[in-house]
Amino acid sequence: MIYMDHSATAPVRKEVFEVMEPYFTKSFGNASTFYSLGREAKAGMEEARENVAKLIGANNDEIIFTSGGTESDNIAIQGIAYKLNNAGKGNHIITSAIEHPAVMETCSALEKKGFEVTYLPVYEEGIVKVEDLKSAIKEETILITIMHANNEIGTIQPIAEIGKIAKENNIKFHSDAVQSVGKIPVDVNELNVDLLSISSHKIYGPKGVGALYIRKRTRLEPILYGGGQEKDLSPGTENVAGIVGLGEACRLAKEELDENIPYITNLRNKLIDGILNSVEKSYINGNIEKRLPGNINFRFTGIEGESLVLMLDAKGIDGSTGSACSSKKLTASHVLKAIGLEDVDSHGSLRLTIGPENTEEEVDTVIKEIPPIVEKLRSMSSIWEKEESLLKDNTKRCDI
Amino acid sequence: MIYMDHSATAPVRKEVFEVMEPYFTKSFGNASTFYSLGREAKAGMEEARENVAKLIGANNDEIIFTSGGTESDNIAIQGIAYKLNNAGKGNHIITSAIEHPAVMETCSALEKKGFEVTYLPVYEEGIVKVEDLKSAIKEETILITIMHANNEIGTIQPIAEIGKIAKENNIKFHSDAVQSVGKIPVDVNELNVDLLSISSHKIYGPKGVGALYIRKRTRLEPILYGGGQEKDLSPGTENVAGIVGLGEACRLAKEELDENIPYITNLRNKLIDGILNSVEKSYINGNIEKRLPGNINFRFTGIEGESLVLMLDAKGIDGSTGSACSSKKLTASHVLKAIGLEDVDSHGSLRLTIGPENTEEEVDTVIKEIPPIVEKLRSMSSIWEKEESLLKDNTKRCDI
Ligand SMILES: Cc1ncc(COP(=O)(O)O)c(C=O)c1O
Ligand SMILES: Cc1ncc(COP(=O)(O)O)c(C=O)c1O
Repeated sequence: MIYMDHSATAPVRKEVFEVMEPYFTKSFGNASTFYSLGREAKAGMEEARENVAKLIGANNDEIIFTSGGTESDNIAIQGIAYKLNNAGKGNHIITSAIEHPAVMETCSALEKKGFEVTYLPVYEEGIVKVEDLKSAIKEETILITIMHANNEIGTIQPIAEIGKIAKENNIKFHSDAVQSVGKIPVDVNELNVDLLSISSHKIYGPKGVGALYIRKRTRLEPILYGGGQEKDLSPGTENVAGIVGLGEACRLAKEELDENIPYITNLRNKLIDGILNSVEKSYINGNIEKRLPGNINFRFTGIEGESLVLMLDAKGIDGSTGSACSSKKLTASHVLKAIGLEDVDSHGSLRLTIGPENTEEEVDTVIKEIPPIVEKLRSMSSIWEKEESLLKDNTKRCDI
Repeated sequence: MIYMDHSATAPVRKEVFEVMEPYFTKSFGNASTFYSLGREAKAGMEEARENVAKLIGANNDEIIFTSGGTESDNIAIQGIAYKLNNAGKGNHIITSAIEHPAVMETCSALEKKGFEVTYLPVYEEGIVKVEDLKSAIKEETILITIMHANNEIGTIQPIAEIGKIAKENNIKFHSDAVQSVGKIPVDVNELNVDLLSISSHKIYGPKGVGALYIRKRTRLEPILYGGGQEKDLSPGTENVAGIVGLGEACRLAKEELDENIPYITNLRNKLIDGILNSVEKSYINGNIEKRLPGNINFRFTGIEGESLVLMLDAKGIDGSTGSACSSKKLTASHVLKAIGLEDVDSHGSLRLTIGPENTEEEVDTVIKEIPPIVEKLRSMSSIWEKEESLLKDNTKRCDI
């Protein structure tokens, strides 16, 4: 199997699994109990907290553990929105048009509850413009939430600049860094964020666990209630094994980041060149420079991405049409729409996301397998046959 | 180590761990992707859903997976409260005075948001009276949430009767069955519940995963937003390994229930007799008959439960003073208060909760170890020394 869907999820690394294992069966104590077995669990958790904090330049006590990126996003966004709105500070939130559903749907739910939300455009490049942000800010703005790197097209937003503007205007700033943490350098102070979401399963940790960075003195209204764990924000018996796994994944990510970035970038570029050179009317969606090292989002005119994914699957190659969450819904990707693609074009997209365990040989195989499949699909495609001449030439758009 | 804190948490059973393992490293796909690896993960999840459903007599499509008992309680209670209140059906909730913080704190948060909450008393026995419930119901009542078995004193509430009354009055009924599922028979139809919370780590599954039973046609307002997973109620990439673990834990629980109940009850009774016969002024908190097979909640006049727990820990025996969540807070247990104990008495409590892997030999050891520790603690206790004669005789209260 050639796995190139790392933005959807990643396996738990052997090293991570080994560190987790004892917490399932031996050191299984409830971390909130005070006898030895509980303290043992607690110690594992606190070491993990330190490893998460270190990866993003935070203090240990600024990290809470959650059940994943989605919960982190919800705790942060709803938490700030309710806290500040209740305090009479305003009801306006600024976000981007290409957020993950965990942010987008949360914002849209808040809209239904009386909040006002501005969705900043991202243009062809898939990147928000700082000037747009500036003009969107008003008296009532209480929160800016803009993702660090996009999960579909991998584009990286100017978070540090946005953070500076947020700070100058005394507005809380949250960034969903689920796709960037462990893939590119992330430092909460350089980025000027008040809140930052992390998910374990995107960086070789287990699914069902995440973290939220909360800058000191940032107060949130809780959305879940219970036994007071994780500063009363993510209550429930702590998922110690999962947390320990996330911690180890963070430790390894920090250690290997400098080595992984050039390695993955190189494979990525090779794969892009190989395909664009051999498949006519193939393009890359989104800015190619300001982009995660491992992300490729191809667009092949005249075919359905779903069919391409299934035919690649039959060859043992795992890729995806976009984000995992929306891949079962047949609606066009809101991200590809936001960068200006027509429905017919956005349906012809293929996301391949590369990880450090992918090899040059695998890239060669993918370069060999994709062209005949695209050709075959085009030969069966009514869009390709009948409308080829009518399809507008997209060569201007972001391709290299 | 003699582990007798099963109500706090349990280890992941070897059989459960073995079933989970491949989903971390091999079948690690994102269950929302549609290529083979994703479908494999999805299949594992759906088998787990069936095992959870079977254990409680539900249909598969009435089960959603969550990040634990706390999230299940929050989704159910907030979900019904907001849904029905938004629809103009009322704002009154009925609960008991001895709920777990996941229910109690959720209700109390709703109170602050304009809901009215009635906390039913449980009297000395630790059991709500159905007549009290009947008189509490009013026009505006939209939800009854009463736990099946209590986590501290193990008392079992008359859920089937309560459910009947709820149904007759067209009120939604939720029960937190985190402590009862897998320990005593639980059937959602016999119990007449609309919603029922389950947690994996109390039944030898992993921490950080749970389930919520939602009776067909019961509509909830979501409290977390994201990629639409689990009927839009518990969004986020599915914790496949955890879910598979919960499923296997449920399958085993169903298989072994009939055997475990008499075995555990027998150990429990032996332990109670052994201690009450050898330690003067020792009592059992809460009704002894309507009680989980494995639960013992001792009360030793004149000592601090915390010290007792630590001294037992030093002897390799793990017990607890009450619920894990509140065990670090020095406030007296709200449960023991609710059954009428004075603070000084409730501080002298020790919870031992027995599981199927405990042995008769272990029980003998505990019976041998506790009396000298209690004696030692009493010899150092100012309360015991100075106030012994003044301490009111509690023999009438629930002891056998
Ligand atoms: C009765 C009861 N409800 C809810 C919970 C919360 O479950 P979890 O720890 O999985 O969040 C617990 C245990 O902590 C419990 O005993
Ligand atoms: C950008 C982004 N945010 C949030 C999430 C949600 O994280 P999780 O799946 O851990 O809930 C994901 C992935 O699913 C993501 O890619």
